[in-house]
Amino acid sequence: MLAACSGGADSMALASALAFEAPRLGLRAGGVTVDHGLQQGSDARAAEVADRMRSLGLAPVEAVAVSVGRGGGPEAAARDARYAALDAAAERHGAAAVLLGHTRDDQAETVLLGLARGSGTRSLSGMAWVSGTGGRYRRPFLQLDRHTVREACLAQSLPVWEDPHNADPAYTRSRVRHEALPILEKALGKGVVEALARTAQLSRDDADALDAWAARAEAEVMTTAPAAAGGAQAVHLDTGGLRGLPAAVRRRVLRRAAIAAGAPAGSLFARHIEEVDRLITGWRGQRALNLPGRVEVRREGGRLVIRQG
Amino acid sequence: MLAACSGGADSMALASALAFEAPRLGLRAGGVTVDHGLQQGSDARAAEVADRMRSLGLAPVEAVAVSVGRGGGPEAAARDARYAALDAAAERHGAAAVLLGHTRDDQAETVLLGLARGSGTRSLSGMAWVSGTGGRYRRPFLQLDRHTVREACLAQSLPVWEDPHNADPAYTRSRVRHEALPILEKALGKGVVEALARTAQLSRDDADALDAWAARAEAEVMTTAPAAAGGAQAVHLDTGGLRGLPAAVRRRVLRRAAIAAGAPAGSLFARHIEEVDRLITGWRGQRALNLPGRVEVRREGGRLVIRQG
Repeated sequence: MLAACSGGADSMALASALAFEAPRLGLRAGGVTVDHGLQQGSDARAAEVADRMRSLGLAPVEAVAVSVGRGGGPEAAARDARYAALDAAAERHGAAAVLLGHTRDDQAETVLLGLARGSGTRSLSGMAWVSGTGGRYRRPFLQLDRHTVREACLAQSLPVWEDPHNADPAYTRSRVRHEALPILEKALGKGVVEALARTAQLSRDDADALDAWAARAEAEVMTTAPAAAGGAQAVHLDTGGLRGLPAAVRRRVLRRAAIAAGAPAGSLFARHIEEVDRLITGWRGQRALNLPGRVEVRREGGRLVIRQG
Repeated sequence: MLAACSGGADSMALASALAFEAPRLGLRAGGVTVDHGLQQGSDARAAEVADRMRSLGLAPVEAVAVSVGRGGGPEAAARDARYAALDAAAERHGAAAVLLGHTRDDQAETVLLGLARGSGTRSLSGMAWVSGTGGRYRRPFLQLDRHTVREACLAQSLPVWEDPHNADPAYTRSRVRHEALPILEKALGKGVVEALARTAQLSRDDADALDAWAARAEAEVMTTAPAAAGGAQAVHLDTGGLRGLPAAVRRRVLRRAAIAAGAPAGSLFARHIEEVDRLITGWRGQRALNLPGRVEVRREGGRLVIRQG
């Protein structure tokens, strides 16, 4: 088991808790810190965080340097590089789990960021308790508030270091943390963080149930099994069966089918799916539609034909 | 058809649009304004708004005085009194529909207010296009932004009157409008209002689909039909069937069953349902639970028995 630790209060408290609990549970517990190389002296900083983890009693402990790309903006690029490094560290050390120090406050921020996308229940479901390949990532602090976690650091006199990015208003998450959430609490009351975290859990359960329904419904309305032929798969759906589904399920089936036919999930927006849906619910002889990834959707009588061109 | 009009810009634009369109569509169109009696001179104000509607060509036009109670806080009490008066006006005039001037901005505010409750997908679904008894209430401006609607008033030189409550920070909705949303836009970008409105529509569809699933699942796991006997109905549910359902559906079934047994919907919170759920998913011989409305839930072998005491 590895604690992922930036040196900040949340993940230092996590490293300390792991170092305390692991021997009592007979678990082998180490730590890893990622040097993103985005600030002067970040390598020395990472070495220091690693030393702090060693002095807590974690072993093995590693500082891993990564090179951050540019894809999807600075926050997404740093996150991608960090998780790739954590995955590699877990595999190198044969760790069954990597613990992350996200708190309920981080969860609330993630829900607000998802809300800003306006893409529905799944994007409101925040971070999972357990995620990643084989359920590798665990977030044991996800129901604790940040204040409690920080008090644990104070009580143990743990030295902590705050990443200046966390307070930099150039970063969306930082603005959400320092500007949006305090004003929301002022407008809506103190329980907002808890309400957002509860929304995450309820939305996750709802999204899981609807995805399960859509998977079952897809199998029922798919009139031909997709045949892999040179990467291009044609998907045929029965429009009568689709029409009988609730809108929420029908749109999920259409999204799944478009992805199965080759449309990249990340480029497929709600407005695309709504347009496809109108071939079912508002049919008046429309022409074929083009979706991202050169995927074409056309209605042929009682069938919807989705194929990559 | 009646336009409900406070005299504010949104509902004056609505009254004007209705007065313009109705004769072209061969519809009879009147208007109603509600005097909540909460400010000095509100009766004269209501009479003036009624005159403005008459001068737009609406007929019949009524100003209705209501007396606002105290139940559920000042905003909820005013709303309850208003809708009761609108219902009565619709019936008095035989109106098939009452049009309301809510805009996309009102919808975004409603979603944020729902988010603060933290009670999941249904509370994020905002206001419906069509609601009320027999679908009486219609919100034709729900996808228009407030700015566009206000420009329509300016373009027509319509005299408008802003309710001072709309800017009073003692009201939660006013704080959401004037403090929370501007800061959210600053933190998350200009598209926040649109994203919130889209979240409302997606959440409504998701909640409808899950409610439909829960209704079907309830019929399948209910081992005895509830027998009305002196108001107290016992509901029996099969725990094996419940265990096979996704959490989101199982919790909805449990909620429906508790309400069928007599628990008041408004007092039944997520934490109550979670406790009932643990009789299914975390059974270790717990005692009977007490829910609001003197409803008792106990597990008896493979059955959950829910009855009012």
